[in-house]
Amino acid sequence: MKENYIASANIKDVTISSGLFGRVSRLVREKVIPYQWEILNDTAKDAVPDHSIENFSVAEGNDQGYPSHCIANFKIAAGDETGDFYGMVFQDSDLAKWLEAVSYQLMSGPDPELERQVDDTIDLIGRAQQEDGYLNTYFTIKEPGNRFTNLCECHEMYCAGHMMEAAAAYYEATGKDKLLKIMCRMADLIDENFGPEENKRHGYPGHEEIELGLVKLYKVTNDKRYLRLAKYFIDERGKNPLYFDIEFEKRNHASHFSYLYPPYGMYSNGPKYAQYHLPVREQKTFEGHAVRCMYLASGAVDVARLTGDEELLSVCRGLYKNMVQRRMYLTGGIGSTAKAEMFTSDYDLPNDLVYGETCASVGIMFFTKRLMEAEQKGDYADTMERALFNTCLAGMSLDGRSFFYVNPLEADPVLSRENPDKAHVLTVRPSWFGCACCPPNLSRMITSLPEYLYTVCDDQVYMNLYMSNQAKLQLKSHAIELEVDTEYPYEGVVKITAKTTGSYGICLRIPSWSRERWKAEINGKRVSEQPSDGFLCIDHNWNEGDVIVLELDFEPKRVYANPRVSKDVGKVAVQCGPLVYCLEEADNGKGLQRIYLPKSSQLQLMSRKDKLEGINEIHAKGLRLRDMEDTSVLYESNVEWNYDEVDLVFIPYYAWANRGENEMTVWIHEN
Amino acid sequence: MKENYIASANIKDVTISSGLFGRVSRLVREKVIPYQWEILNDTAKDAVPDHSIENFSVAEGNDQGYPSHCIANFKIAAGDETGDFYGMVFQDSDLAKWLEAVSYQLMSGPDPELERQVDDTIDLIGRAQQEDGYLNTYFTIKEPGNRFTNLCECHEMYCAGHMMEAAAAYYEATGKDKLLKIMCRMADLIDENFGPEENKRHGYPGHEEIELGLVKLYKVTNDKRYLRLAKYFIDERGKNPLYFDIEFEKRNHASHFSYLYPPYGMYSNGPKYAQYHLPVREQKTFEGHAVRCMYLASGAVDVARLTGDEELLSVCRGLYKNMVQRRMYLTGGIGSTAKAEMFTSDYDLPNDLVYGETCASVGIMFFTKRLMEAEQKGDYADTMERALFNTCLAGMSLDGRSFFYVNPLEADPVLSRENPDKAHVLTVRPSWFGCACCPPNLSRMITSLPEYLYTVCDDQVYMNLYMSNQAKLQLKSHAIELEVDTEYPYEGVVKITAKTTGSYGICLRIPSWSRERWKAEINGKRVSEQPSDGFLCIDHNWNEGDVIVLELDFEPKRVYANPRVSKDVGKVAVQCGPLVYCLEEADNGKGLQRIYLPKSSQLQLMSRKDKLEGINEIHAKGLRLRDMEDTSVLYESNVEWNYDEVDLVFIPYYAWANRGENEMTVWIHEN
Repeated sequence: MKENYIASANIKDVTISSGLFGRVSRLVREKVIPYQWEILNDTAKDAVPDHSIENFSVAEGNDQGYPSHCIANFKIAAGDETGDFYGMVFQDSDLAKWLEAVSYQLMSGPDPELERQVDDTIDLIGRAQQEDGYLNTYFTIKEPGNRFTNLCECHEMYCAGHMMEAAAAYYEATGKDKLLKIMCRMADLIDENFGPEENKRHGYPGHEEIELGLVKLYKVTNDKRYLRLAKYFIDERGKNPLYFDIEFEKRNHASHFSYLYPPYGMYSNGPKYAQYHLPVREQKTFEGHAVRCMYLASGAVDVARLTGDEELLSVCRGLYKNMVQRRMYLTGGIGSTAKAEMFTSDYDLPNDLVYGETCASVGIMFFTKRLMEAEQKGDYADTMERALFNTCLAGMSLDGRSFFYVNPLEADPVLSRENPDKAHVLTVRPSWFGCACCPPNLSRMITSLPEYLYTVCDDQVYMNLYMSNQAKLQLKSHAIELEVDTEYPYEGVVKITAKTTGSYGICLRIPSWSRERWKAEINGKRVSEQPSDGFLCIDHNWNEGDVIVLELDFEPKRVYANPRVSKDVGKVAVQCGPLVYCLEEADNGKGLQRIYLPKSSQLQLMSRKDKLEGINEIHAKGLRLRDMEDTSVLYESNVEWNYDEVDLVFIPYYAWANRGENEMTVWIHEN
Repeated sequence: MKENYIASANIKDVTISSGLFGRVSRLVREKVIPYQWEILNDTAKDAVPDHSIENFSVAEGNDQGYPSHCIANFKIAAGDETGDFYGMVFQDSDLAKWLEAVSYQLMSGPDPELERQVDDTIDLIGRAQQEDGYLNTYFTIKEPGNRFTNLCECHEMYCAGHMMEAAAAYYEATGKDKLLKIMCRMADLIDENFGPEENKRHGYPGHEEIELGLVKLYKVTNDKRYLRLAKYFIDERGKNPLYFDIEFEKRNHASHFSYLYPPYGMYSNGPKYAQYHLPVREQKTFEGHAVRCMYLASGAVDVARLTGDEELLSVCRGLYKNMVQRRMYLTGGIGSTAKAEMFTSDYDLPNDLVYGETCASVGIMFFTKRLMEAEQKGDYADTMERALFNTCLAGMSLDGRSFFYVNPLEADPVLSRENPDKAHVLTVRPSWFGCACCPPNLSRMITSLPEYLYTVCDDQVYMNLYMSNQAKLQLKSHAIELEVDTEYPYEGVVKITAKTTGSYGICLRIPSWSRERWKAEINGKRVSEQPSDGFLCIDHNWNEGDVIVLELDFEPKRVYANPRVSKDVGKVAVQCGPLVYCLEEADNGKGLQRIYLPKSSQLQLMSRKDKLEGINEIHAKGLRLRDMEDTSVLYESNVEWNYDEVDLVFIPYYAWANRGENEMTVWIHEN
């Protein structure tokens, strides 16, 4: 691995000013984060719980989803209040993710009132911390004697990891180190208990995340122990004898998720569920719980890059390929089944049973950002874009008040109600969840979006995602400023103005969907460079005010799946730029599965600034299979099929389910 | 309702001599019944349990499937042995169904050794009966104080109903009344406890079946109390306040199927699960557990016919229509989801998630046979035939040693292994089940098949199913004999010889698939009659030796589903005569979901007496979608699809999964 100067953009130095993500960032800042604070404090008045996330809510006996009780748990653990713990065993992480999101928000602009709120909360967290540094409200309140006895199920390290990420972020945002110190003490405690030494336990987390937190602690403290511990967790995972077997025996087979989640239960798919079926370095496919997979792989890329571990990076590359070449939906969703929210097998991508958890696609963002830091290949950023512009965005309603956990590519409210196999596929976003991982995960990703926009390697800046923004970037030997002006993803023209004179490289991503048609000019003159690995790198002596205009291919396109994806055979999807489109009942009536898009139909883009907060529709002539003459017949040999011509209206996938309960489909029959 | 003389054929008077069902009947007699006896006695050596029927095996804590422990339970209840009850709460019914099957077998021909075995077993049952007539080994051994406290879940009446059916059958087979008396005592006890009177409990069974048993007791004893009680159970069902709510409160919310089957649990779909969501007379759609639906409807038709209850018959007619017009698979399978093994909603017929329980299709046989007795419409017999020749037959391997519980229309062993949503879809038949309802249900249906062949109404005999047989039939004013000679379902020619001189009607079913092309001749002369309600009734002065030759349309045919069945849009299936065909990997290679059957391809029938115990194959030119040039690409816009010509070989659906684990599909893309 080359030892390059590598950096992502600093959040404080990038302003996403307008356009789709200007709006979404504002929404998260102004609506989502305050709303989530109300939720954490059980003061949200109109939150309607969702009861459909069957595995979790039932397993935990928490069928309410609301109240969250998250802050209350900390108060009880701190001794400020009396009462019992309530919620998921990983309820603490909801607060951690909120703190992390708020920290990024504070980097983007001061908010003394919010900062005061956070400081009070950190004081509370401090009071909930035990004398030896231990921090976890569930164990502190419910099972103080059972710390670190059920890593497989109980998320202690997961919660710690999230709070470490929050601590590092808040320290970076404000320079205040109280939470950082709290979490260093917790990290130290974990380090004292786990590691390769004989007197330590040879365990690792049941749900990966602490690896990311430890790397962030390492980055702000420069304490190598944290990086070493992250590496240890990755290397220990899946070694024989299995640690989770050992601890399971030690605690006499006690299970936390008693029925549906025994460590070897029917839904858990055995050790694959939590990726300990093999040592990580021997894993070639993503197996088990999709979010866990993304967190593991993200941590592994961090460790590989920071320790120069080419072997580990190569494993991550292999896992990435397995995902994007065989196990990812067109929308950047992953996880083909609701059972254990997991990957199944290559090319098994059912559109109506899919899980496609919002958190998992946020996890794709984490993973691909780190892969970009390790090696600058456009394919990583293409995948990041696919996840962000489709599944991640679909995870939240346009008003920021309700959220999807599951993101289907085919939905029918009748089937979701009447067929329990599809009970997890909601067609209206609930306002909160019993297992509330997704909404705050979206918030922290959106508030940190600037980090994803640019990857700096030495004196080149890679533009991963296109959206209007003003950025200050520290290259290896330059501090530069760029201004990006674009209507992307609703137009394909991206105007980049170099605000800094000097010799440095600007690398424009040429998305795979545009590789056959694109145009780039500097100050009106066609560039001569050609893209390599998905990036058009222009090394140039820039003058302040130089303008690059990149024109990408914004013709709406038909997209097809690899024929090994059996459920998409004979079907077509529609995409324009990075946006996958869908048909919704609101525009096209009921019976979307009877619609055909003829190969010959023209796809026409139509700007609709008045609709769904401003979108482009795609219009096409389609056909709808007409009912049999005798509708009482279920099977028939002598059939004359008739079709009605219909005007199809496609909308961007992310905008679906904002007009009430209705059918939706991404894949359509082609003829 | 007309008051006609109605009869089905007597089992003892019909000999199914040769052909497909000659073979299957022999198999059941010679292999299946002895094998099931070994199972019941825990002496079967090579039975490999199946662990995949998740709801039951896990709910009951019985994850073994084997041993059955069924006879042992009776011995323990009788005080012959010590030990604990083991198995499902309805384990007794396995023995009952076996006894019923054996009784039918003994009607077909004496077997003193087998009869002695049965007599010994009946003695055992007698010893297991309690002094007051109560019979149920689970409650006798485990919860003697809790009799009749959990009708909703605990199958006491279900087990009793099965044993009543066995008792009536054994009495009819042998004239011995010991078991009959045992079950009359149990019926009397139930009658003393349940009924409309104020001092009785106003309950009904959680799983219908006793209605059928009581009707059979009534038929052999002529005691109207039994018919009245059957009618009571049907009429009481679903009345408010719900009895199952009342008993649930009374027993302080104790549940038998603790986790997955609480009476209002997440899988149970509430009262719909057991059809008590509405009074039966108000039910218009089949809801909930498919087997329960069939048993309820069968009992209701019995009661309607025997009491002249036109309203109730009309309800059954409506339910029948709902099933065949909206909720039944092409193969005669029912139940679209494994969750609670139930119906979902109209036109929701996913081919890969289907349950299609063998027992449910056996239940279709029960239901349609009774509908034929109530009114002679060919559509009922068409449906009976669809269920029998496809799903029922598929429920058993060709060697009679292994069984399907679930009958998919699309299967892929990789997905069944790797995607837990499809874990219930096995691609190899297991040799036994933890919940072993299906194999003995098949046995009792096959050994009683003669009853299904003919329905007599006054002086007309309706030929419901075609297969070679010699039959003696008691019409209203004639005792007649018929001889049927045919290679059906592998040829469309059915030769019927009248062996009795006289004036009576022979009604030939003209199956719906043959309604446009058929020919009937008497002694070589074309008949002039036309079919009505699916039957060609020939009222004639027959001379002994008169020969009817019926020629049905045996051209292989394409079949299509109603376009509201979204999963079959753009797809075609192949049928010949009553047999639905399928593609299997063994003949067509992997990747069946990439195969297209062009509209223009000719379907050619080819006799293969050497294959799969003798079948007709159907051959056709097909196309297989070729891999993309770059197989590493998952989604692509610029695709030139290429197809390879392939010689498709279709086999009858019932014969699939007899050549090792492999892919199968019934529905194929058409182009």
